[in-house]
Amino acid sequence: MTTQRIRDFLATRRPDGPCLVVDLDVVRDNFHAFRHAMPDSAIYYAVKANPAPEVLKLLAGLGSNFDCASVAEVEMALDAGATPARISFGNTIKKERDVARAHALGISLYAVDSHEEVEKISRAAPGARVFCRVLTDGEGAEWPLSRKFGCVPQMAVDVLVYAHQLGLESYGVSFHVGSQMTKVDAWDAALADAKRVFVSLAKQGIHLKMVNMGGGFPTKYLRDVPSAEAYGKSINQSLRAHFGNQIPLTIIEPGRGMVGNAGVIKTEVVLISKKSDNDTARWVFLDIGKFGGLAETMDEAIRYPIRTERDGDEMEPCIIAGPTCDSADVLYEKNLYPLPVSLTIGDEVLIEGTGAYTTTYCAVAFNGFEPLKAYVI
Amino acid sequence: MTTQRIRDFLATRRPDGPCLVVDLDVVRDNFHAFRHAMPDSAIYYAVKANPAPEVLKLLAGLGSNFDCASVAEVEMALDAGATPARISFGNTIKKERDVARAHALGISLYAVDSHEEVEKISRAAPGARVFCRVLTDGEGAEWPLSRKFGCVPQMAVDVLVYAHQLGLESYGVSFHVGSQMTKVDAWDAALADAKRVFVSLAKQGIHLKMVNMGGGFPTKYLRDVPSAEAYGKSINQSLRAHFGNQIPLTIIEPGRGMVGNAGVIKTEVVLISKKSDNDTARWVFLDIGKFGGLAETMDEAIRYPIRTERDGDEMEPCIIAGPTCDSADVLYEKNLYPLPVSLTIGDEVLIEGTGAYTTTYCAVAFNGFEPLKAYVI
Repeated sequence: MTTQRIRDFLATRRPDGPCLVVDLDVVRDNFHAFRHAMPDSAIYYAVKANPAPEVLKLLAGLGSNFDCASVAEVEMALDAGATPARISFGNTIKKERDVARAHALGISLYAVDSHEEVEKISRAAPGARVFCRVLTDGEGAEWPLSRKFGCVPQMAVDVLVYAHQLGLESYGVSFHVGSQMTKVDAWDAALADAKRVFVSLAKQGIHLKMVNMGGGFPTKYLRDVPSAEAYGKSINQSLRAHFGNQIPLTIIEPGRGMVGNAGVIKTEVVLISKKSDNDTARWVFLDIGKFGGLAETMDEAIRYPIRTERDGDEMEPCIIAGPTCDSADVLYEKNLYPLPVSLTIGDEVLIEGTGAYTTTYCAVAFNGFEPLKAYVI
Repeated sequence: MTTQRIRDFLATRRPDGPCLVVDLDVVRDNFHAFRHAMPDSAIYYAVKANPAPEVLKLLAGLGSNFDCASVAEVEMALDAGATPARISFGNTIKKERDVARAHALGISLYAVDSHEEVEKISRAAPGARVFCRVLTDGEGAEWPLSRKFGCVPQMAVDVLVYAHQLGLESYGVSFHVGSQMTKVDAWDAALADAKRVFVSLAKQGIHLKMVNMGGGFPTKYLRDVPSAEAYGKSINQSLRAHFGNQIPLTIIEPGRGMVGNAGVIKTEVVLISKKSDNDTARWVFLDIGKFGGLAETMDEAIRYPIRTERDGDEMEPCIIAGPTCDSADVLYEKNLYPLPVSLTIGDEVLIEGTGAYTTTYCAVAFNGFEPLKAYVI
């Protein structure tokens, strides 16, 4: 997954210290793959996955829409060339003054999952379109969702009725099947729930128009994942099964699936050591860790592909840790990671599939280490 | 723990958005308490806990030394007025070029826990003093240490012999009993190990001079913690028990214990909602969460005191979560947190004991939210 362009960049620029390199050609390919697999769905890129201006500008040019989590992200999408009509304020937790700011910027599509949020939007963005997020179980996701977002379907009906009563346009429902979702049929149960909400509201004279099917599309780490094509096919079947010949407008919100495999982190082996003479596993310390951008190794959830220049050599299982004086800054310890026996202090190591949720997750300057540098090429 | 000075600051300045306010008077009191409780130990403040220039300057003026995790932290301590002789490069994981930079800045005291690190220091900082970190079990710590740092005592002996052979000054041993350590006698077993390393090396004609007893001194969150006095007394007893009348130089490295209770985070209730009509617990969403500075709520490890202006009212258990579009951004869910039934969207909430490991842990700009602002008064 390290493209030739990334290899060439690293070989010629030789950047010092850890850094992320993002290949825009891969992002472009991913966008086309989603558009081809799901031609009837509008793509709303989840800005939080990687808000690099170059990425946003490319996607804006390709015709992408944008799912934004804050006013700052809305402003980034606008700066990249998106019109307000192509932006969704997709966070269900918003300060009323931030809704007012988004409204002033022309944003007219908002996520809600509670009566309280509907009230804020009715005051700060009168007449806006709202969609209500419904809770799903997230089974099968590698980065599981909690119950933080959404409400049960019955409550979603009440919330959307309330929005209608307060003069908002009750526009649709949304759900999220869980990040890095590797089951292509995971959308089916949620679409059945969505349909029930549509039916309940139609009985009250409120006709929803849209289903926001969220993100969850995976990136390839160590294991193969299904293609965008396979997800498109499965989702399309579910839409037909549940909505028949009245398929609503649909939205997808890929983040990881759009940029994950476009990025590679270049890091360096700082130390290789053992804790005792009879330790079986060596500790390999890199110059990047949990606080420098690899937060998704929390509980060893995401297992990134790691490449070295010695990968043809004999391998042995290692513990991999970051450079900070923090004992929690260990990447893989419960499940040891095979690395070459010949790996040496000073060696360059590539961590693949790191285009999403790395630069933004990294700490400001923990231990005095600078945030992860990023080069978008 | 919210001091009158902090209350006055918040009342008059009314800063917008979440922020940390640190009261230097509390830091000063903590420094004096440590000095009084352990008059024979040199205090090396763990810069990583809170590297605010005002904190470092105050402590430098009070005569503190500094435990630094990186060259950047060394430079911060020097900028604050510390001389190089008062600085320890306490990270056992260092790039050789960083050792060379520290050496050029005059730093002469380094942590090691492996032969490989000794080799780097012998090349990049010839003649420097080194201390070897020994593994301890961390039992009783609320933020437990992993095996990431240190080596077994027998290996520490070998490492220090090797350092001596390479022309370094084998200066001592270090250990860390685990952060937020609430057992005052936790230092005893580690001091016994330290003594054994001293004896083994003395038999080979190498006479260590120093024991670095690390940090781990707690700050008061919800439960009371023993006083600095109590730790000093217990540690002193252990030193006498193990070292008799040949007590070495000792160092302590308080971080959390120096600044934790000096800081208060001001935050705001963004949303209060339920997921269904028959939910028993309400969700309270704040404008700060795991990615905005409260990373130590990971696994609900640290339970901060939370104050509202309605604390006299009836309380009910709540789930508390942060503002980002990330399902992992939940602070307390397994163990619900009692908050007033009357708590309302827009209310100001104070999170106490947040002077340590907050500003530095926070993400660069996840979801477009700015890093935690800090005011040091």
